[in-house]
Amino acid sequence: MRHIAITMGCPVGVGPEIVLHFFSQFSASAYLPVVFGDRGVLQRCADELKIKAEFYAWQPGAPVQEGRIPVFELSHLPVKDLAWGKPTIATGKAMVHYIEQAVRLILEGTFSAMVTCPISKASLNQAGYSFPGHTEMLAALTGSSRYVMMMAGSRLRVTLATIHCPLSSVPARLKRTELADLIRTTHAALCHDFGIAVPRIAVAALNPHAGESGLFGREEETIIRPAIEDMRAQGIEVQGPFPPDTIFHKAAAGLYDVVICMYHDQGLIPFKLLHFKDGVNVTLGLPIVRTSVDHGTAYDIAGKGIADPASLAAAVDMAVLIAENRNVRER
Amino acid sequence: MRHIAITMGCPVGVGPEIVLHFFSQFSASAYLPVVFGDRGVLQRCADELKIKAEFYAWQPGAPVQEGRIPVFELSHLPVKDLAWGKPTIATGKAMVHYIEQAVRLILEGTFSAMVTCPISKASLNQAGYSFPGHTEMLAALTGSSRYVMMMAGSRLRVTLATIHCPLSSVPARLKRTELADLIRTTHAALCHDFGIAVPRIAVAALNPHAGESGLFGREEETIIRPAIEDMRAQGIEVQGPFPPDTIFHKAAAGLYDVVICMYHDQGLIPFKLLHFKDGVNVTLGLPIVRTSVDHGTAYDIAGKGIADPASLAAAVDMAVLIAENRNVRER
Repeated sequence: MRHIAITMGCPVGVGPEIVLHFFSQFSASAYLPVVFGDRGVLQRCADELKIKAEFYAWQPGAPVQEGRIPVFELSHLPVKDLAWGKPTIATGKAMVHYIEQAVRLILEGTFSAMVTCPISKASLNQAGYSFPGHTEMLAALTGSSRYVMMMAGSRLRVTLATIHCPLSSVPARLKRTELADLIRTTHAALCHDFGIAVPRIAVAALNPHAGESGLFGREEETIIRPAIEDMRAQGIEVQGPFPPDTIFHKAAAGLYDVVICMYHDQGLIPFKLLHFKDGVNVTLGLPIVRTSVDHGTAYDIAGKGIADPASLAAAVDMAVLIAENRNVRER
Repeated sequence: MRHIAITMGCPVGVGPEIVLHFFSQFSASAYLPVVFGDRGVLQRCADELKIKAEFYAWQPGAPVQEGRIPVFELSHLPVKDLAWGKPTIATGKAMVHYIEQAVRLILEGTFSAMVTCPISKASLNQAGYSFPGHTEMLAALTGSSRYVMMMAGSRLRVTLATIHCPLSSVPARLKRTELADLIRTTHAALCHDFGIAVPRIAVAALNPHAGESGLFGREEETIIRPAIEDMRAQGIEVQGPFPPDTIFHKAAAGLYDVVICMYHDQGLIPFKLLHFKDGVNVTLGLPIVRTSVDHGTAYDIAGKGIADPASLAAAVDMAVLIAENRNVRER
């Protein structure tokens, strides 16, 4: 039986409760999801929220126990000292440990994929790690230099040329060669991870009306179109740059498999409008399969039982899909 | 009976056919819609598209003829010389004349509102007018210096702090006093034009995550928040700046009556995703009521009969709503 690692995320965020909700709705498949986390934290969460859940300690080679949640126990935090929404150095170190062990077991071949529950940047830094987030940590752990953040849902997929930076710095950050790399990585992932034989790729413009022939900006002509043409010359079907205000409607209507976006909100505004609850964050370009919920630790509601597990469920489904597609390809 | 002017727009764009489709579906109300345009152009369009339509020449004081389309005949273009999608100097001058006459009759009190079909900037310039579009022309014709473009639909309304400019110039264009004016004009329009007693106004941030405490940009703290606080000090309920990637979901869910946006695509991407067919462009801050379809002349499909009249129908409904609300207020 194949295995998928679900890292529990920050122990005082919404991770534990969405894991419990997920397993209460989960039906068995060819893949066994195993929680990389803390059994005591999960038990306390189940008790507080009156969720019926039984756990067992998973170890490599351990037999599956039907109806119980397998937990790879990687921390034993003192639950009496923990408060929802209040990360400590110990919770920060624990959440990093879950991630490191998941990567290790995937690289060893024991696991097929990992699905990550949310961590917070503040907690990461408090525990002594300088990564801005999951994605950069996973890139470092797997020695990957070219990785791409994709947000994926049933109606829309987007990848981002720039992510966490001021809007004013976006135009100067766009480079022809990096955009070409982004198109190439996005294309390869759609082929191999999503099983799309001939992906239909749209590139959004940077400026309104795609620059209106230079009247509202020149980046379309100096950077974006040349990058598109570079990739077309290499046989990759990619179209654009398209006026940003209409391309997402077209993609959501089924005309494109992905929209390559120039900046964070260009992609995230339409994505979250269509996939507020069930969006999945996928890291492309890593040697391992990694998907993630698309929300944060939500410290303000952690432990209240109101966090929605829909994104986690979608992230697990997508991890299985990608693992299957990669497996098919590698046979 | 009250009257609403529908300007026919560019005679070789999709204006004539959406007007015909609109009247074929239109049911009488307390307002009589009158086409400001060219009867010959409309007749040819009806003949080509096999749309049953009868017209009559409307004049101030003329009796209503049930079942026939009233046309204020403001041009007599040589239809044999016109080709769909090919504007001429004569078509450009004619479309400007429709607009000027509509404004004149509204200012005289004969008409309650105007609804504009699309014109093109190229055609406007070709005919010797330097306005970038309708809105600027209407501002000049009515002597208005503070006007605001709103896109309005049943699920979302947005107003824009900057419109047609390169993305790279957006941050420098944002000014505290102008944003405060925008908030004030938007608030006044929601109260008086849309009849909302206490409008719930959200302001979108410029940067991802609303700047993440300055990490991804400072405009939230130096410009946007001060403008919001200026307006709150004057008793206007307005909230923000909100992370752009989630505020539109909240507004579309009914939590806000409007989202004030910092740039064209920030507002237009979510708006067109929700209201691709039935969006309405409303000009706030004019002494006259003016709504417009939210699409262009669509020269590539003009004369083919496939243009959707939904936006025109929505624009007429919204013009009636605003005219009624202003009328109620003025009684």
